[in-house]
Amino acid sequence: MLSLSNLGVNSVSSVIALHTSDVRFPTSSSLDGSDAMNRDPDYSAAYVRIETDALDGLDGHAFVFTIGRGNDVQVSAIDALAAHLIGRSVESLLDDMGATWREFVWDSQLRWLGPEKGVMHMAIGAVVNALWDLKAKRAGLPLWQLLARMTPEETVALIDFRYLTDALTPIEALEILQGSVPGRADREAALLKTGYPAYTTSPGWLGYSDEKLVRLATEAVSQGFELIKLKVGGNLEDDIRRLGLAREAVGPHIRIAADANQRWGVDEAIEWMSHLAPFDLAWIEEPTSPDDILGHAAIAAGIAPILVATGEHAANRIMFKQFLQADALQVLQIDATRVGGVNENIAILLLAAKFGVPVCPHAGGVGLCEAVQHLSMFDYVAISATTDRRVIEYVDHLHEHFATPVVINRGHYRAPTVPGAGTEMLAASRTEFAFVPHD
Amino acid sequence: MLSLSNLGVNSVSSVIALHTSDVRFPTSSSLDGSDAMNRDPDYSAAYVRIETDALDGLDGHAFVFTIGRGNDVQVSAIDALAAHLIGRSVESLLDDMGATWREFVWDSQLRWLGPEKGVMHMAIGAVVNALWDLKAKRAGLPLWQLLARMTPEETVALIDFRYLTDALTPIEALEILQGSVPGRADREAALLKTGYPAYTTSPGWLGYSDEKLVRLATEAVSQGFELIKLKVGGNLEDDIRRLGLAREAVGPHIRIAADANQRWGVDEAIEWMSHLAPFDLAWIEEPTSPDDILGHAAIAAGIAPILVATGEHAANRIMFKQFLQADALQVLQIDATRVGGVNENIAILLLAAKFGVPVCPHAGGVGLCEAVQHLSMFDYVAISATTDRRVIEYVDHLHEHFATPVVINRGHYRAPTVPGAGTEMLAASRTEFAFVPHD
Repeated sequence: MLSLSNLGVNSVSSVIALHTSDVRFPTSSSLDGSDAMNRDPDYSAAYVRIETDALDGLDGHAFVFTIGRGNDVQVSAIDALAAHLIGRSVESLLDDMGATWREFVWDSQLRWLGPEKGVMHMAIGAVVNALWDLKAKRAGLPLWQLLARMTPEETVALIDFRYLTDALTPIEALEILQGSVPGRADREAALLKTGYPAYTTSPGWLGYSDEKLVRLATEAVSQGFELIKLKVGGNLEDDIRRLGLAREAVGPHIRIAADANQRWGVDEAIEWMSHLAPFDLAWIEEPTSPDDILGHAAIAAGIAPILVATGEHAANRIMFKQFLQADALQVLQIDATRVGGVNENIAILLLAAKFGVPVCPHAGGVGLCEAVQHLSMFDYVAISATTDRRVIEYVDHLHEHFATPVVINRGHYRAPTVPGAGTEMLAASRTEFAFVPHD
Repeated sequence: MLSLSNLGVNSVSSVIALHTSDVRFPTSSSLDGSDAMNRDPDYSAAYVRIETDALDGLDGHAFVFTIGRGNDVQVSAIDALAAHLIGRSVESLLDDMGATWREFVWDSQLRWLGPEKGVMHMAIGAVVNALWDLKAKRAGLPLWQLLARMTPEETVALIDFRYLTDALTPIEALEILQGSVPGRADREAALLKTGYPAYTTSPGWLGYSDEKLVRLATEAVSQGFELIKLKVGGNLEDDIRRLGLAREAVGPHIRIAADANQRWGVDEAIEWMSHLAPFDLAWIEEPTSPDDILGHAAIAAGIAPILVATGEHAANRIMFKQFLQADALQVLQIDATRVGGVNENIAILLLAAKFGVPVCPHAGGVGLCEAVQHLSMFDYVAISATTDRRVIEYVDHLHEHFATPVVINRGHYRAPTVPGAGTEMLAASRTEFAFVPHD
């Protein structure tokens, strides 16, 4: 198809606005998303839309997922990045996304607010992801395919190796990518045919009754999921009862993972898990503080062969590097909106590949499924070349608010075919759920 | 003296307002504060004043130090905490500062924005510090003295041990504090007489000429400082020349520390430092990413006997715990406004004591000297009971803007005697340097 982009019209476009919005869904009323640490989340998005003056009419959309209070702070952090973007050439930003990433992350003043962690880093991630959304739309490809068709050299150029080379050098990253060039087309075809394996957390929220847990666990199996996840860590007796009920409901062949959401100290985690060992858990997730690399390593050693999973709150690639170096996690859970966007997540995927650790993304929330599936699919086609031991979290909330909601079929994410990064929320939803402060 | 507080008038007071302001000093014009990563800082404060309806007229003042852009984001994060405070009983907040700290840090929705790191955690730190300022003013004591006169049990109750017990239990903390009860009065008297040792970074900014470096280094010695610090990591030849000039200027008996401000990767740090070894450095500070615990451990092993110093960008007590567990730092640099305020810094001081590592605070910036001196003085009286190997950073910028500016005498911080935490900026300065956005 002849597009404006092909005619070169885009080659002179500029960013003309960064539109942000504070979108909050009142999920706390139903206890969807309740766990041992997050009793009453209101799933929210600090949303950004990058507008250009290109005639193609394409915008870049992305967001930071939060759980309510403070979403306004996250929005103001995204607003603070407008000065980096307004008036800039869209093409020069998109053509060298490695340089663009560095420009944001190494802003010498903004950097003080992290560095590379928390509100400011997540804001950078949102803007980076919005630019990737725009880049994919301009290319007429879903993000996973855009990424999976880059050359190994182009992919390596996206990554800042400054703090990584003791674990992963650019040459090693290149070799990993080159090693997976053969078979790319076959794996793309396989994804388009079968999709990517999913697991579901929908049955397992702490706020749900036993009856609802059993009903949803049974439904999950009938829907084709081969792994479900339960929240634990509130009360040991409850955990034992609920895991027993879930095991009874799903039978012996479905895997069950457990998620403690940072509830424990190191010794407490080892002690608590000794009581859950009989349930043959797929993994224990976030047993302690997401900053405690050495603590996770001690827990992993103390509860083996149960695997330790973490990552949804790991601030950046430098934390993941150490989790891998210390054998502190055996299941690596990237999150689409926690770190500095697509570039940093690619660095993390490559680190995982170097250490031979499977990546099983965190999703759920609002829009996280839509966003993170692209990274796993890219990983499958161009990095790890396998879905073995790999599964993307799925929660059946709030997908209806997105322009291209995920489609789950027989326990698999269907591969997206619509151009973009999946991160565009419907304008009507953004308006309807715009947060209005009380005062 | 009979005060309103003694009459019980305060026992019914409430928080009536959180006043925030975005204060920025145009320091980038003089290259004060320039280093290998921060080329052009504008020293700034995201400032908070807690107002109550008490008849004593006392407010609590504190701030987060930033270096310019993004200070507005930091202010908005402090604003987001107003809902926790407005209308609350001041006495119940101040009487159990441990519970108050937990209430902020474990807010289940705000926690998602960190957890315990970056903009949101620093905002909590500012509010906690403002409450400590108010508590000290109400007690009629400088903060260091208020803290140093608490019982060991009261001090332990300030700390959240959830993620610490694998390194420091409440009982161990209590024993450390009890061990330093003898001699408290003598050490208070010694502090009031002699002050606390300081070192100066004033000569060493990368943006200064060789001539200015030599002049300021010479002046520092004549002023009684026994340690000076130079910024390094921009260019190896420059580092060697500048360290040579500094050594010549100060003679063989003054110690010289170096600060790389996160410039290097792990291997690069070890290689670069091999060239600086001949200068007999007191320490190398921030050789790499402040998140890289294992990287610092590798560097420390690779450059011994040169010591590794870090901490001004360490996000929280959990990071410090691991730095100590991994022998990744030999000089621990707390910062008054990076972590969750006084409570968390006390936890870090106790961890340092447990591991036998000296604490040499980061200061400079704007107001950091005024704030952090209280923590070192408390540490001396009630925890470590020594100033051996311990010095507080000093930089001679912007003290004139504070109600109780630090006083340096013969290379020592004079012990403050005015009630409060030292964190109150003059109203005139807050007004004069209030930031006005360009657009």
